[in-house]
Amino acid sequence: MKYCFGIDIGGTTVKLGLFQEDGKIRDKWEIKTRIEEKGRNILPDIAKSLMNRLEKEGISKEEVTGIGIGVPAPITEEGFVKSTANLGWEEKNVKAEMEELTGIRTATGNDANVAALGEMWLGGGRGCKNMIMVTLGTGVGGGILIGGRILTGAHGAGGEIGHLCVNYGETEKCGCGNYGCLEQYASATGITRLAKKRLESTEQDSTLRKGPVNAKTVFDAVKAGDRLADEIAVEFGRYLGYALANLAAAIDPSVIVIGGGVSKAGKVLIPYVETPYKERAFFANQDVTFALAELGNDAGICGAAKMVLD
Amino acid sequence: MKYCFGIDIGGTTVKLGLFQEDGKIRDKWEIKTRIEEKGRNILPDIAKSLMNRLEKEGISKEEVTGIGIGVPAPITEEGFVKSTANLGWEEKNVKAEMEELTGIRTATGNDANVAALGEMWLGGGRGCKNMIMVTLGTGVGGGILIGGRILTGAHGAGGEIGHLCVNYGETEKCGCGNYGCLEQYASATGITRLAKKRLESTEQDSTLRKGPVNAKTVFDAVKAGDRLADEIAVEFGRYLGYALANLAAAIDPSVIVIGGGVSKAGKVLIPYVETPYKERAFFANQDVTFALAELGNDAGICGAAKMVLD
Repeated sequence: MKYCFGIDIGGTTVKLGLFQEDGKIRDKWEIKTRIEEKGRNILPDIAKSLMNRLEKEGISKEEVTGIGIGVPAPITEEGFVKSTANLGWEEKNVKAEMEELTGIRTATGNDANVAALGEMWLGGGRGCKNMIMVTLGTGVGGGILIGGRILTGAHGAGGEIGHLCVNYGETEKCGCGNYGCLEQYASATGITRLAKKRLESTEQDSTLRKGPVNAKTVFDAVKAGDRLADEIAVEFGRYLGYALANLAAAIDPSVIVIGGGVSKAGKVLIPYVETPYKERAFFANQDVTFALAELGNDAGICGAAKMVLD
Repeated sequence: MKYCFGIDIGGTTVKLGLFQEDGKIRDKWEIKTRIEEKGRNILPDIAKSLMNRLEKEGISKEEVTGIGIGVPAPITEEGFVKSTANLGWEEKNVKAEMEELTGIRTATGNDANVAALGEMWLGGGRGCKNMIMVTLGTGVGGGILIGGRILTGAHGAGGEIGHLCVNYGETEKCGCGNYGCLEQYASATGITRLAKKRLESTEQDSTLRKGPVNAKTVFDAVKAGDRLADEIAVEFGRYLGYALANLAAAIDPSVIVIGGGVSKAGKVLIPYVETPYKERAFFANQDVTFALAELGNDAGICGAAKMVLD
C-alpha cells in the first residue's frame, strides 16, 4: 500500500490529510496558518507536521507517492505564486520549496481548482473526466477539469468563472471593477442583492418580509412555497444557467457540480439552474448532468492528494 | 531523423503532409475524399497513399512516430465519431481503424481543434501553451489549447465558441436555433448582416453603398478610412472582444489567435477586438497577446502531425 498527502492551505488553518492510494482517508488534521513574517513558517510548519505523522504511523518516505498542495492564489503549473494577500507570501515557488523541505515529490494547484478535482475523484463528479465546478459562496469561484486534469491556464488563473459577464446592461459595479459579472447574481451576496431589489420593487406578500434576507432564507422560503422567493430563485438560476451554457460550449463537460455555501440549499437548487441551461446550451452540450458537491470542507485535501496520484 | 504524417480530412479533399519531427514539412499533397458508400473508402485511400509515400521516400514504418488525423466532426479522445454529415460516416473509431490499416500509432482530433494546435506549434501562437483560436469564416469555429493539449471535451465538442451567447436581447435566430450567438455577429455572414442593418438604419454616406457588402468590402472600406465601415467594425469587435474576455476568465490563455477568411483583413482587425477585450477582461487576463493565424490551409496538417509528436 502506498500513501500520499493532501494539503489545503487557508488563511486561518491548514487542512492536512493522509490518504491511501485508493482514496481512503487514513487520517486528517489541521494546523494553524502562521501568516506573520510574510508567511515564512507556513511551508516549514506543514513539512514538520507531515514528517511527524509519518513517524507516528510508521510509514517510510519511500511509501509516499507525493504531496499535493492547494493554495488560495493563482499558481502556475510549475508551482510559482506571485503574491497571496491571505498568506503574506510574495514571489515563491511552493512546489520547489516543499520538495526541498521534505524530499518528497510535490504538486500544487489553486485551491478552487483543487477542490474541483477532489469532487471529480470522490464527490459529485465521480467517474467523470470533463467537469465544470461552480462554487457559490460569498463570491463565485470555480474549477474546470479537462480530461481529468485541472485547467490551470497561463497565469494559474483558469476557472475564474465568477467574472464572466452575464448582463451587459448592469449599472452596479462588481468588486472586480466590471459590470454584470456572474458573481453579482449567483453568489450568496448576489442572491441577497437580487432578493432585496425584488422585495423593494413589488408589494407582493412574502415570508421574506418578516426576517433576514439572505441566500439561506430565500431558499428556505422557496421550499416553503413562497412565490416571491421562487421568482428570485428563477432570476438567480437564469443568470447562472446561461453562464454555464456559454461555458459548456467551450468546455464540453459531462457534469456540472454546484458547491459552496449556497449549494447547502440542496437538490431544490438544481432545476432552477438546469432549466435555463438547457434553454441556451448548444445541442452537443444538452445531456450534461447537474450534481451537488458532496465533500464539503474535505474537497480541498482530496483534490490535493489526487494531484500526486495522477 | 524520425517522421510523422499529418492528415486533414475535408468534405472534398484530404490534405496529407509528411513531416520531420522538428516541424519541417518534407512533402505535402492531396487526394480526393470519396464520400460515396458512406465514406468507406476514405481511410483506406489515406492508408494506401501514406504507404506509397513511405515506399517512394525509402522510409521504413519504424521511422514513423505516428499518424495524426483531423476530422470535420466531434471526435472523442479515443477516436470515436458518431456521425459526420460531410463524410458520410456513421459510428466509427477512426483511430482504431487507421491503426488496423497501417500498423502505425494514430491520434485523432476535431479539425478546428487540430488547426489550433497547428497554429500553436508553427503559427500565430508559437511558443505558447495556453491559447484560444477563433476562426472567423462562414461560421465561427474555434479551438482551445490547455497546457499545450487540445481541449477535446466529453463529446469531442470542446471549443465550439461560435455559439457562445453574446446578446441576450437578439430577436433573429442563429442557425443552431438559439438567439444571440457569437456567430451571428463575428462570422463573415454575421459581419455582412451587421453592415446591411447599419446601412439601412442611417443615411450616412459610405463607399459600401456603391458595391457588394461583405466582410472583405467592409474591412477594405475600413482601411480606406470609411466612417460607417469603422462603426461596423467597432460593433463586430465589441461582440467578439466581449465573448473572448468571458472565455479568457475560464481558460486563462496567453495568446488569442484569430484565423479564418475574415482574418485576411490583416492587422487592422486586431485593435477592434483587443480594445473591447481589455475593457471587459478580468485583471488576470489583461496581458493576453492577440495574433493572426499564419498557416492558412496548412494549419490542419501541421496540428495533426503535432498530435503524434506530443
